[in-house]
Amino acid sequence: MAHLEFWFEFASTYSYPAALRIEALAREAGVRLVYRPFLLGPIFAAHGMNDSPFNLNPVKGRYMWRDLERTCALYELPWRRPSVFPRPSVTAARLALLAAEESWGPSFVRAVYRKNFVDDQDIASVPVLAELLREHGQDAERWLARANEPDTKASLRAQTERAQALGIFGAPSFVVGDELFWGNDRLEQALAWAARI
Amino acid sequence: MAHLEFWFEFASTYSYPAALRIEALAREAGVRLVYRPFLLGPIFAAHGMNDSPFNLNPVKGRYMWRDLERTCALYELPWRRPSVFPRPSVTAARLALLAAEESWGPSFVRAVYRKNFVDDQDIASVPVLAELLREHGQDAERWLARANEPDTKASLRAQTERAQALGIFGAPSFVVGDELFWGNDRLEQALAWAARI
Repeated sequence: MAHLEFWFEFASTYSYPAALRIEALAREAGVRLVYRPFLLGPIFAAHGMNDSPFNLNPVKGRYMWRDLERTCALYELPWRRPSVFPRPSVTAARLALLAAEESWGPSFVRAVYRKNFVDDQDIASVPVLAELLREHGQDAERWLARANEPDTKASLRAQTERAQALGIFGAPSFVVGDELFWGNDRLEQALAWAARI
Repeated sequence: MAHLEFWFEFASTYSYPAALRIEALAREAGVRLVYRPFLLGPIFAAHGMNDSPFNLNPVKGRYMWRDLERTCALYELPWRRPSVFPRPSVTAARLALLAAEESWGPSFVRAVYRKNFVDDQDIASVPVLAELLREHGQDAERWLARANEPDTKASLRAQTERAQALGIFGAPSFVVGDELFWGNDRLEQALAWAARI
């Protein structure tokens, strides 16, 4: 079965509509998804940026917030501009990495995005993440403890390094074989590519 | 009749598919187009960039060239990566500004884009631009002389300043009332917005 790697970062604004849309579209296209959480911070830093490009260029930032509002309205997705941007996402990303092979993984990913971009809650907060884990029938303390283990930390670092090696510079990104697609706008095209090969 | 301002820069890669697609789509949507050539150089400089962002960030640049190739294939548009990027576009932009109210203006704009992104020719070259003007039944020497007049230079400067005042930071951009849309990907959405108001 054709497959597509979904590279996402929980702080990334355009990853939110992609994360909420991707399961239904992939099912329709007959494409298997592989969830790849990673961190944009180290990748931006490697390009000399110490913050989101949307904060470094406020003109572009202002546009992005309005564009995202329009985009979510088009998709009929709920949306609220978070009061903190970008929110630290490292713990959530480690949990998503551990959950990538679990049946509740995709739903957990969507729930984290909703916390950030619908409920405007702090996704770096351990109680917020614990609540989400419990809502997914999971032993929150156990997963949070695993998220803090050196092995998990090393895995997320390695995954971010792999993103960089693949030429990923933003999120969401989609990888199909040797092809890289960047942005929520490219989701349909990436799935069509995956379905064709 | 609803109208949409099409803000374009001849050196801009994603402006090429937008310029080639916009007339048919606008006709279908019943939207009148206003052509607004401008220069990205001064806008990039105001954001601290002395080159195209695709050159300043080679990882993003590499992605853009491949993405544009795929995009043009989807639209069935001819495409060749120009051997020089970005090409100096100031004279072509001044001509397009003068031609904006002329019946041959839109066709001239498309012809300049084709020279750059299909024929890989230097759109800063006066003979190349003169040939295009003559192909449009125009007195090339007269238009080129007008393009070099202080009034024309001031008009293009003013138009670029207006782009900046509108919050434009890249090309192509589309302005409909108070709404700004950025990127070839947003062309359909911008036209739908224009048709609705």
